[in-house]
Amino acid sequence: MKKLALLLVCLPLLTVAQSNKDSLQLRMIMNECLLNSSAYVHLEELCKEVGGRLSGSPEAARAVEMVAKWASKIEGVTVTKQPCMVTHWVRGAKEEAVIYRKGLSPIALYPCALGNSIATPSNGIKAQVVEILRWTQLDSLGKAGALRNKIVFFNRPMNPTFIDPGAAYGNAVDQRWGGAARAAAYGAVGMVLRSVTHAYDQYPHTGVMGYQDTIPKIPALALSTIDATLLSACVHGDSQLEVFIKDNCKMLPDEPSFNVIAEIKGSTYPDEIITVGGHLDSWDLGEGAHDDGTGVVQAIEVIRIFQALHLHPKRTIRAVAFMNEENGAKGGKAYLEAAKQNHEKHIAAIESDGGGFTPIGFSSTAKNEVRAKILKDWKPLFEVYGIWNFTGEGGGTDIGFLREINTVLFGLEVDGQRYFDYHHTANDVFENVNKRELEMGAASLAMLAWLISEKGL
Amino acid sequence: MKKLALLLVCLPLLTVAQSNKDSLQLRMIMNECLLNSSAYVHLEELCKEVGGRLSGSPEAARAVEMVAKWASKIEGVTVTKQPCMVTHWVRGAKEEAVIYRKGLSPIALYPCALGNSIATPSNGIKAQVVEILRWTQLDSLGKAGALRNKIVFFNRPMNPTFIDPGAAYGNAVDQRWGGAARAAAYGAVGMVLRSVTHAYDQYPHTGVMGYQDTIPKIPALALSTIDATLLSACVHGDSQLEVFIKDNCKMLPDEPSFNVIAEIKGSTYPDEIITVGGHLDSWDLGEGAHDDGTGVVQAIEVIRIFQALHLHPKRTIRAVAFMNEENGAKGGKAYLEAAKQNHEKHIAAIESDGGGFTPIGFSSTAKNEVRAKILKDWKPLFEVYGIWNFTGEGGGTDIGFLREINTVLFGLEVDGQRYFDYHHTANDVFENVNKRELEMGAASLAMLAWLISEKGL
Repeated sequence: MKKLALLLVCLPLLTVAQSNKDSLQLRMIMNECLLNSSAYVHLEELCKEVGGRLSGSPEAARAVEMVAKWASKIEGVTVTKQPCMVTHWVRGAKEEAVIYRKGLSPIALYPCALGNSIATPSNGIKAQVVEILRWTQLDSLGKAGALRNKIVFFNRPMNPTFIDPGAAYGNAVDQRWGGAARAAAYGAVGMVLRSVTHAYDQYPHTGVMGYQDTIPKIPALALSTIDATLLSACVHGDSQLEVFIKDNCKMLPDEPSFNVIAEIKGSTYPDEIITVGGHLDSWDLGEGAHDDGTGVVQAIEVIRIFQALHLHPKRTIRAVAFMNEENGAKGGKAYLEAAKQNHEKHIAAIESDGGGFTPIGFSSTAKNEVRAKILKDWKPLFEVYGIWNFTGEGGGTDIGFLREINTVLFGLEVDGQRYFDYHHTANDVFENVNKRELEMGAASLAMLAWLISEKGL
Repeated sequence: MKKLALLLVCLPLLTVAQSNKDSLQLRMIMNECLLNSSAYVHLEELCKEVGGRLSGSPEAARAVEMVAKWASKIEGVTVTKQPCMVTHWVRGAKEEAVIYRKGLSPIALYPCALGNSIATPSNGIKAQVVEILRWTQLDSLGKAGALRNKIVFFNRPMNPTFIDPGAAYGNAVDQRWGGAARAAAYGAVGMVLRSVTHAYDQYPHTGVMGYQDTIPKIPALALSTIDATLLSACVHGDSQLEVFIKDNCKMLPDEPSFNVIAEIKGSTYPDEIITVGGHLDSWDLGEGAHDDGTGVVQAIEVIRIFQALHLHPKRTIRAVAFMNEENGAKGGKAYLEAAKQNHEKHIAAIESDGGGFTPIGFSSTAKNEVRAKILKDWKPLFEVYGIWNFTGEGGGTDIGFLREINTVLFGLEVDGQRYFDYHHTANDVFENVNKRELEMGAASLAMLAWLISEKGL
């Protein structure tokens, strides 16, 4: 009875002591990152010495070697190149788009092909244009035969009143993904798309699109928001307006590639795996800085922090640079398949694929009781770093496959108001990443991985 | 008794209804701003057609007219130019700084004078350099006579482990403000300062410094962090190293200028005033975009939103563009003096002077019971916009004077990790402001002003 009384007295004190220890460890992690991070230097190396790195390209292959090299320099880390066959699409020569107005001089635009698009015939396509703002409008015009032999121009913008730009993106990107097939089903011969962004500028935004097996494939190009505005104005002035488009893309057979895995074996529960990842492939137009060079260098930084601080996590921590997120997600699928084949136990996975901006929280797929625990015990530890939002649902494309084996998924949430200004453009370059914002994101990933490792979920 | 029972039943429902009405009104404000804001266009006009606008300069005078013009175009708004005498310091011809190493070629640096600095003699100053990292080091060297006829080089950096960059700034800026006087007290003939920033680049950061009446005035220049690192390396290699500095600054007599006030009269309590402000003056090196063009255009936007939505606030709302925040704060003082003279009742004031970044909260000087009410009733209304932090203590330089008349002060808190990259440099330009982040800040100011206006404090 005395012992119980003592325990009852001491328990709150022990809890406070534990909480103090946790907060000190998180502070050590954050400080180590802000003082000694390799993330920014790694990002510069990846962006400037490799640059854009489409799946299957020589650049992607060089990026794999670069990340493996970084990881192998960290003591006590096992580096694996995990094979996967990846999509191999190539853009070919620069795309063209020209507006032809009756009796007026033509207007050259600066388009880019959407990812996975087919090529136009070698002499391009010239056709009348129909602007589409709603799916219902597409269907009614299509059923009336008004899209036959036309180039369909999808011009619905992202909605500025969505506070989360990711939600606004999700609400507009259906045009990019499905527009070509839906237009082709009504006999259209090509599609051009207003870039999916809030920015009003001259950068066209690429990104993946898809075809359907039963519908003819037509070429698909993106226009900058300025070019889209210009084309819309011309169409309104002349419904007979013609546009010429030309692209030179090609889908090649799948190519062998790799995910890069850097692992620290857990000291107590080595069989329980926590994955922290970003994707190593990027679009070819820029340097893939925010998308997703930052996620990759942050994941490697997590491992570096643990080893630099001699933290010895209880559970196994893996930093993973996934391949082929952008136009196939075959790296993510291969990671799941290997996990299943090897009967691995993946308790949690954390993805950073929203850009290297100031961290504000973690979305997750956690069940209610786990979420309640996170809100009660962990959120207060994060709030001093401005990381406050643990309410969202989500994870990420690459780790998403792990849901099949009951892994709890987390997505790093950031202050991403300017993400879609850079996303999938020639302007996604190293110079647009802020060193501190990148590092705070890396530290956040390490802090969450550390808590999961020490306490379980 | 029946009535009481009915009231008891209905009260929670009424509260819910009120809260729904509040949240709808805040949503209207946010949407109006994100869809139709003038803030970004105004900022471009201010930055590109006026640019840097030091107090007392012709540019500052033109900025006053520009803001008055914007405000007078908004229906139902009374525009006043409130006179104040302001500091009039001029930089003069470009500054120089050169490192002279024995037997090696000289190294030219790219300095800028600190605000309010005196000039060097017209042929400059050449002297040995002493690097100082701590005040105790200054004092011990000073007392030993080791600073006599020297140029003192203050090289203590901002601490990267402070999460709030404003706190890291506050922790380093004492060198800029007080360094020259404290070095001169020990016989130093000049001071150079490592720019107060986290960024490692070639931009020197100006900012206000001060002298003391009883201590000789010595010229004070800032070096970029790269130049400071270079100078430090040279000093470590050669303790006899000499540096040449030259600047051409001049303090002129105070100049007449104005605060610009745009007022909507309150519909119910016209005598109760809520001020929303930023400062119109800026340093001369850049365009004063984040510091504080954004605060000014946001304040004007608050007024525009209310009038566009026909919101008719119960209390009087004033958008104020304060003059002379940077090197005298005489606009803020004049605003207080006029308030006292006219027996005005200022219930609240909100300042935006942390840059046009994504809003995350409001610091305040509110007493505990007011703060508790804000946390309970208002914070949930803001959280859906990512505005979550209502805990900080603060207000702002210009509105700070109103504390004397018991005004509750609020400061807009933002995701300012990159603020001190631009702050007081030639790189504080329009292009580094994101349209959405600027607008979300403006909407936040309007939302808080609206709640205070409708509910009091």
